[in-house]
Amino acid sequence: MELLKQRIIKDAVVKKGNVLKVDGFLNHRIDVRLYDEIGKEFYRLFGKENVTKILTVEASGIGIACITAQAFGYIPVVFAKKGKTSNISDDVYTSRITSFTHGVDYDIMVSKEYLESGDRVLIIDDFLANGEAVKGLALLVSQAGAELVGAGIVIEKGFQPGGKELRGKGVRVESLAIIESMNDETGEITFRI
Amino acid sequence: MELLKQRIIKDAVVKKGNVLKVDGFLNHRIDVRLYDEIGKEFYRLFGKENVTKILTVEASGIGIACITAQAFGYIPVVFAKKGKTSNISDDVYTSRITSFTHGVDYDIMVSKEYLESGDRVLIIDDFLANGEAVKGLALLVSQAGAELVGAGIVIEKGFQPGGKELRGKGVRVESLAIIESMNDETGEITFRI
Repeated sequence: MELLKQRIIKDAVVKKGNVLKVDGFLNHRIDVRLYDEIGKEFYRLFGKENVTKILTVEASGIGIACITAQAFGYIPVVFAKKGKTSNISDDVYTSRITSFTHGVDYDIMVSKEYLESGDRVLIIDDFLANGEAVKGLALLVSQAGAELVGAGIVIEKGFQPGGKELRGKGVRVESLAIIESMNDETGEITFRI
Repeated sequence: MELLKQRIIKDAVVKKGNVLKVDGFLNHRIDVRLYDEIGKEFYRLFGKENVTKILTVEASGIGIACITAQAFGYIPVVFAKKGKTSNISDDVYTSRITSFTHGVDYDIMVSKEYLESGDRVLIIDDFLANGEAVKGLALLVSQAGAELVGAGIVIEKGFQPGGKELRGKGVRVESLAIIESMNDETGEITFRI
């Protein structure tokens, strides 16, 4: 998505430790007009898949998911909640995510009543790196007996293994910008063509 | 907001401990069409206030804030992040929130570059009960030297003190539905007229 790549070149900052700081427009301060274009692009990619539900995980995915739902004709959004195991009841689907970024494990959960076996689910998230969040969300979809249509990702770090692993398992992953490499000394960012 | 009150009557569930469960349409599974109407209503209430920025806190506020921003002609949204004190640097405004619901204190923070002294800020959140989140967000606005236009709340628990306290301090609080009382045995919900 050319508009997004241009915005990344213009406003993203490469930090040490493979951190790409895009919080000026994507996940702290939000440019909602850009979200509109992102939603339309996800619809262009997945619009023929009869998606019945958009699934994301708190927090940064929620806004993108809501605006993508508008592009899909107002299908419901469900966001998985993060929590500790103690919260987990029989009424939820749950999976554990290992966050390499934050160095902690946490559980995500969705109430069983909001993911159904007839659903065709599109996962939406802002970032894909090691793919833990998408794998965790896909597990919830599978627990519900629902169909996973694919994952729509805004920015994929192509030099981390998540995208390759998921595609290798047959998941359709569509990332609007895939970063091939980035350099925290020069600030240079190269996209996968 | 009549549409919202009708939806609460239809789909909300009153639980023990003054919990109003609205996660079927507001804050777990999301009806984005309802969010559209909520955004328009906030614009009707605050549209003449020259709002330059919408401020919320992760997680449930983010989707509402993004769609409200559309109604305001795509002004930027900023969401405060929750975290532990260890994350806090000189580059952020921060305040501490005591959550009565979860029984823990946590810090919220916003990067200084995203709240400016010239901003006219509208706080948006899904719930107002004891008012801790709004007070914390208002403190960030004040730290930035920005102007607080008011707080747009989807559901206010009128029997808890937050709304009264904030209005007593001169904050313009506009809640789209104010619950006067609710009964977890009968399920009855009464709105403030």
